[in-house]
This record gives sequence, structure tokens and C-alpha cells, in this order.
Amino acid sequence: MQVAYDGTAYGGWQVQPNAPTIQACIEKALKELTGETIRIHGSGRTDAGVHAKGQVFHFDLVDSKTPEVLLKALNALLPDDIRLLGVKEVDPEFHSRFSALKKEYRYFIYNGPTLAPFERNYRTHVRVALDVDRMRDAAQRLVGENDFAAFSSLRLGDPDEDTVRNLMQLDLDACEGELVLTAVGNGFLYKMVRGLAGFMIEVGRGRMGPDDVAGLLASGKRSEVVPTADAKGLFLWEVSY
Amino acid sequence: MQVAYDGTAYGGWQVQPNAPTIQACIEKALKELTGETIRIHGSGRTDAGVHAKGQVFHFDLVDSKTPEVLLKALNALLPDDIRLLGVKEVDPEFHSRFSALKKEYRYFIYNGPTLAPFERNYRTHVRVALDVDRMRDAAQRLVGENDFAAFSSLRLGDPDEDTVRNLMQLDLDACEGELVLTAVGNGFLYKMVRGLAGFMIEVGRGRMGPDDVAGLLASGKRSEVVPTADAKGLFLWEVSY
Repeated sequence: MQVAYDGTAYGGWQVQPNAPTIQACIEKALKELTGETIRIHGSGRTDAGVHAKGQVFHFDLVDSKTPEVLLKALNALLPDDIRLLGVKEVDPEFHSRFSALKKEYRYFIYNGPTLAPFERNYRTHVRVALDVDRMRDAAQRLVGENDFAAFSSLRLGDPDEDTVRNLMQLDLDACEGELVLTAVGNGFLYKMVRGLAGFMIEVGRGRMGPDDVAGLLASGKRSEVVPTADAKGLFLWEVSY
Repeated sequence: MQVAYDGTAYGGWQVQPNAPTIQACIEKALKELTGETIRIHGSGRTDAGVHAKGQVFHFDLVDSKTPEVLLKALNALLPDDIRLLGVKEVDPEFHSRFSALKKEYRYFIYNGPTLAPFERNYRTHVRVALDVDRMRDAAQRLVGENDFAAFSSLRLGDPDEDTVRNLMQLDLDACEGELVLTAVGNGFLYKMVRGLAGFMIEVGRGRMGPDDVAGLLASGKRSEVVPTADAKGLFLWEVSY
């Protein structure tokens, strides 16, 4: 299933005891509809406040409803900040996470004096004028198979994770104060896109520069000079299989 | 001052005892900033859930801060679903309501199977396919100086209000399921734009037709066949002076 959600009211994708999560909402609706206790598997977690335009998840189901009937009935049970967009019956070997070929994230920055109230939950607001050319220069130096440890946060209990990823694309579109950073890769480390966005904003402000990229990639460890940009600007845009 | 707001969390523009309102929030911020108890005057009221991209209000102030300093300081005090966009010192004779030459409202309809979670508070969702040509035909017959009593609600205690208004423009733009109804007039009756939008949706569904317009305009009284469309699709877009 493909799902879009507004992450504002949620503690992220993954089930956790102390906050409502997207996964928990969907599993509850599935239980209500089919009577089955079902675990759904997302293409990846998204953090609290992060949105999705095209998150994908899979699950195994006994219920014999057609996929289309299932989708419609689930949408009627789900809150309107979670909307199922598509459904497809898949091979038993398919896994929403491990079968993914690439993922696209988009990070939205509003670079102007006043953020529209309608966009307050979907944009990071930067008032000082950002140098877009400088940011694009830095972005191009980040593309490729690199060790992105400097830009990500280690999850607890996972200190030995391989931190090399293939960042296939990192583009910055800019139009009248609306900046969109598009990141495409075969996989992303924990908080990596927000680290890349945080670094890019620092570069745009002039606090860091394109020349800092090489050193950060070579360092192999989380850098304190790279801020994690605000969750609300981030959208999991598309997962390709 | 020009102000944009997300009306979702508010009981409308006008101060009232039982709900937070836009006017009350702005007056509170003004009091906090200047120490003065100030009554602000909007170009018109907007109902609970209705948004504004360009509401205008005026007020009298003793405080000697420059308008620009005032705007910046007030925005820092206001919640982020209310944003002041512009400020201008005006002639003492200026009145945000009575000096207005025309007002533009826009009503947004999403006509497709699934409303994006990010637009859930800003669009009215109609699933059944609307006939746009038929709606445009009806719209053109509504334009002009007419008695719009059939499309509006009388405010309590105001039964003798003149219900003739000059509707200068009523256009429908349609692009990939996104329908935008633009209404421009010298003034609008209470709930009139929502009545026009409600009627237009009925026409698009085929429940009413362009031929019903003449009879409704001639009736001179609120019609039960005209539904009041949902508040969340409506934006006060611009006030011209």
C-alpha cells in the first residue's frame, strides 16, 4: 500500500508506547476491519513531525476482500491526516524495505520574511537570504557513494552500522523564496536527509562552504557542526521498486 | 494591516465569548505590545473555519513605533497560524470596511477520489465528478447586480438588510481535480460565497442546473435548495481600496 500522511500530530511512523504513530493507526484500522492482528512493514521509519507523500508498506492478510475494497474501507476508518493512495497485491517475496531500489525525499525551505500560515507545518523557515549557487555547489560534492556518518545520527545500539550510502541525486530548486532539496538514494541513514538539509542551510547562510564537504565525508563520524534540520520540512516523497 | 490566517482553530474573525478568534488574538498582541486597549476593525467578518490570505483591518494607536517595527513585534507575539503581511499608515478617514472598493474570495474544491492530508483543512472534498462546463454556465448567469437573498443567510436581528449586491466576477478554474471558484464583488452578504459555492456544487453534480439561477435570484428569499458549502474551502483572498 502507498500512503500519504501529515506527520504533525504523530510521534513518527513506528509504533511506540508514548505517542500516536502512523503505523499504530493503520494497524488499528486493519484490526477493526478484518479482525486480524496484523503487523505492517514500512519502507523505512519517519521521525516525529516528518511527512510522507508516498510511503509504502506491506503486510500479510488472510481476509479475502479485494485490495480496492480494502483500501476504501480502511480510508473510511483512518483519520484524514492519513490517506491510503494505492494498493497492489504482491509476490510473497516482496518486502517494502528490502525490495526498494531507491527512495526520494524532499526537504522544503521557505526563505523569505513571513511564512504563510497554511505552510507552517510543512516548511522550515529561514529568514536570512540563502546563497543558492553556493548551496548547489556543495550539493554536487555530496553526490555519490560516500560515508555519510557526519550527516546522520546513530541509532541507539547500532554503533557498527555501515554508514556508506549511494546518494544518487541532491538537487536544489529555488523559485521565489521556495527552496526544495531533492535527495535520491539507495538508502538513507537515520536523520541523514535532515543532516544534509541542515548542512546545506549552513552553507547557504555562509557559515560553512562547499569546501567543507570533503573533510566531513572523510571524517567517518557524526559532526557537531552539522545541525539536524527541523522535521516539519521533510517529506518521504517516493519509494521505487 | 494585511493579515493571513488559517481559520481552522478559530471561531471566526469576530470577538466572541466562547471561542478563540482572530480579532481577539490580534487585539491581545496589540495590548501586550503597546499597553493600549485597542479595538481593530476588519474589512468584514469571516466565519469559523474560514481562512484569509489577505484580510485587512485598521485601528487607531497612540504608540509611536514605526509601522514596520510594529508589524515585526506583533508577528513575534502572534501564533504562527496568524501572520501579518503588511502595514501602512492611513488617513484618519480610512475605514477597512467602508473604504473597500471590492473584495475577492476564493473557494477551493478538490474533485477526486482522495484528498491529500496536507490539504484537508483547505479544500472541500467532492468525490463524484463535477460537470465544470455546466457550473461555468450557471456562474455566468449569477454575475451582475442581483438580489442574492437566496444564496445567503440573514444575520439575527437584521431582517431588513438590502440583499442586492454587485457580483462583478464569478469564475471557475479547473485543473486536474483542483477547482477554484473566484468571486469578486463590491460586498457580500452573510454566508453568500458559501451559498454560491454550495449551489455551484449542486449544479456540477446535476442536482440543479443553470436554468435554476433566474428563479433563485427572483425569489428574494433564502432558498432551502441552496446548501451552504463547508467553511474550510473558503479564503478571503484580497480586499481592494
